[in-house]
Amino acid sequence: MASEFDLIARYFTRSAPAGLLGVGDDCALFPAPAGEQIATSTDLLLEGRHFFPDVDPRSLGHKSLAVNLSDLAAMGARPIGCVLGLALPRLDEPWLAAFADGFHALAAVHGCPLIGGDTTRSAHDLAISVTVFGAVPAELALRRDGARADDDIWVSGELGAADVAYRLLDGQYPADPQRLAATRRALEWPEPQVALGMALRGVARSAIDISDGLLQDLGHILAASRVGAALDYASLPVATALDGMPEDQRLRAILGGGDVYQLCFTAPAARRDEVSRAALAAGARVTRIGRATAQPGLTVLDARGRPMDALPRGYDHFPAA
Amino acid sequence: MASEFDLIARYFTRSAPAGLLGVGDDCALFPAPAGEQIATSTDLLLEGRHFFPDVDPRSLGHKSLAVNLSDLAAMGARPIGCVLGLALPRLDEPWLAAFADGFHALAAVHGCPLIGGDTTRSAHDLAISVTVFGAVPAELALRRDGARADDDIWVSGELGAADVAYRLLDGQYPADPQRLAATRRALEWPEPQVALGMALRGVARSAIDISDGLLQDLGHILAASRVGAALDYASLPVATALDGMPEDQRLRAILGGGDVYQLCFTAPAARRDEVSRAALAAGARVTRIGRATAQPGLTVLDARGRPMDALPRGYDHFPAA
Repeated sequence: MASEFDLIARYFTRSAPAGLLGVGDDCALFPAPAGEQIATSTDLLLEGRHFFPDVDPRSLGHKSLAVNLSDLAAMGARPIGCVLGLALPRLDEPWLAAFADGFHALAAVHGCPLIGGDTTRSAHDLAISVTVFGAVPAELALRRDGARADDDIWVSGELGAADVAYRLLDGQYPADPQRLAATRRALEWPEPQVALGMALRGVARSAIDISDGLLQDLGHILAASRVGAALDYASLPVATALDGMPEDQRLRAILGGGDVYQLCFTAPAARRDEVSRAALAAGARVTRIGRATAQPGLTVLDARGRPMDALPRGYDHFPAA
Repeated sequence: MASEFDLIARYFTRSAPAGLLGVGDDCALFPAPAGEQIATSTDLLLEGRHFFPDVDPRSLGHKSLAVNLSDLAAMGARPIGCVLGLALPRLDEPWLAAFADGFHALAAVHGCPLIGGDTTRSAHDLAISVTVFGAVPAELALRRDGARADDDIWVSGELGAADVAYRLLDGQYPADPQRLAATRRALEWPEPQVALGMALRGVARSAIDISDGLLQDLGHILAASRVGAALDYASLPVATALDGMPEDQRLRAILGGGDVYQLCFTAPAARRDEVSRAALAAGARVTRIGRATAQPGLTVLDARGRPMDALPRGYDHFPAA
């Protein structure tokens, strides 16, 4: 059995890129990008809460980093590097090797090397903490508080698949191997929209990534920006894997489903072409789904333009009693 | 019962200092310090492994940040800010308020505001992840690989008390309320040597903070610097709270005891006065405990100059079988 230090060395030490001091000192060091701001985000993921105990470790390594890169994307920040904390209930080397592979592969795609970490043993649950660092010029950072009335509201990618996969795996929906096969990738291999976020610098006025559900996350933009919104339900980009599902399940997945890791953003109507060009450059699909309103509140309009009621809430780790 | 967002707002949102975008966006933002490097360190602390379930939450908040500030200290970095991940098995507001108080109080002392975080529910154990950021000019960063043969080896503060407190609380030693009272503060309220680390820029050649035990942590300097060391046991600064303890327990606490969060560093013999002045300026006590050697290996010499054997090992989360 390997010691802690062997373990760290074997799976989590990569040659740090030039200018970065990686795993192996008290701190990791990286150069401060001149004239930019450092953007940072942290997530703490726990077995049984954020992932199933039997999840493919390679996808877990990928997703642990992806959810943090998605936060950089939502600020328009360029990834610099990341640190990883890992608490393991046992030392399972094939599991670790696969986890590390999934993590490092996504890190390489986005130029976000692992530069530091902490490995320890846990009493019960696997716990994973990831903190990412990026850089963005202060005046170009996409924030939650920049939306204005009459801005277009946009979303990238598609909605709904991750929620359906989660509920199938969790046993909330009857087993449906075909639908699970069509939705599972969205849940386990989310693709953080880093290139899109950077392309939207100076174009979008506000942005957020959808982790807790479209309505809830858009709600954060609206609250921070002191505006309201009207969404057109029929315009929402829905994963085709949801075709034929009961309407209440679709509604819940599309409006309330978390784990999407696409961007929801606003931009002036005069910038529609620029938004389209940014998406094209980033290889992303974007869809205009509504507009911001001076009147507070979030309304979803049905195909006949009437406000829908009984909208699903997003995920809250500590729901109100 | 409060929702997750209420909770974050109530205990973990402070007014971010000017120039920093704090809790409440996808990422926290802070200005990149011109011409410096960013130093970062992360720790993942778990109930039952790193602290006792009944620990005073105020001291736990303090210590969660202190262990990370200690890593900045060991690099000579100036704190900028930190992010916190918190996984709670239940929502206990008085506990949270005390934890937040302990955390924020130490953050204020060191100018290291909480600028982002993630709060979630855990299935079993409380888990705490902290990542700190600091700044240091690249050429002045204190690293592990800078020691040279004939450097003096120094340690700050005192050794041994935290280990004794831990073993008393863990029931490894018979109950001894008086000794526990005299040692407990060292375990629960460690004081990261941030000012000393900064004062040692350009003076010390290498540094590390003592988290796993003097011999083990000094061993990391020796391995990275490809030198050996000879320590004088009689010169080690030992907490008076260890007076009268059995010698084997003292030895284990002094040489192998973790949770010290003092600095071990090396400096050329020609710089003894500068080391003393740096310590004076930082309000720290430093003690010269030996010297680095060209010959590899770590030797501890007894009062008669003879190598001691049966030295204690430090803490390893995954000990070799």
